[in-house]
Amino acid sequence: MNIKRNGSTPSARGPADYFTGTVRIDYPFQGSAPARHGGATVTFEPGARTAWHTHPLGQTLLVFSGLGRVQREDGPIEEIRAGDIVWIEPGERHWHGASPTTAMTHVAIAEGLAGKVVDWMEHVTDEQYQR
Amino acid sequence: MNIKRNGSTPSARGPADYFTGTVRIDYPFQGSAPARHGGATVTFEPGARTAWHTHPLGQTLLVFSGLGRVQREDGPIEEIRAGDIVWIEPGERHWHGASPTTAMTHVAIAEGLAGKVVDWMEHVTDEQYQR
Repeated sequence: MNIKRNGSTPSARGPADYFTGTVRIDYPFQGSAPARHGGATVTFEPGARTAWHTHPLGQTLLVFSGLGRVQREDGPIEEIRAGDIVWIEPGERHWHGASPTTAMTHVAIAEGLAGKVVDWMEHVTDEQYQR
Repeated sequence: MNIKRNGSTPSARGPADYFTGTVRIDYPFQGSAPARHGGATVTFEPGARTAWHTHPLGQTLLVFSGLGRVQREDGPIEEIRAGDIVWIEPGERHWHGASPTTAMTHVAIAEGLAGKVVDWMEHVTDEQYQR
């Protein structure tokens, strides 16, 4: 058993290669093999979002607070609120983030496949985000 | 992509066979195969706790609020607080719950192995819990 205490991992900034706007990554966790789930708590400031990406084994988002947006390729932009749970299918191209005016925090959970958890693609343009 | 909206799954009571005291299970989630992670948000009223149990692929607990307790076999009772992250090893016999006076809420995440997520054992006695 291992307990990682609050405050033992500093908040990190979501890198500009994979995110637009101000994104903070907190409370990272990772099960040890043969378990393969891991994740973090991610906070998107208003207007901030991920780039387009896929997860080889899918992803669960537990929305904790605020008002966010999620979109899969060819789907509508959907609003997400605290208590909503999003399941992204393996290989499904998508993005997620805050709404333009209100921040959003979610826990993101995904499993690694041969150690790979995500494939990052191009940024979500302002036109795509505002649509 | 699937969005399960807040309020679409009723709160459930933790069954007396596996829990002592009042335990509420909310916001269940489950990735679809080949993903195997799933879990829920679990709230323990003061004094409430799980029975002794193991997880074939381990478990992550993200403590959200309150003051709780966790113990592995032959280890000390450890206090856990909001922001603490507990990793339980595969097969490690343990229990978790609230403190005697203060409730505790955590998200619990585990992976199924051949569909099995947990092996339940005997209850944690008052003597074990108060030690």
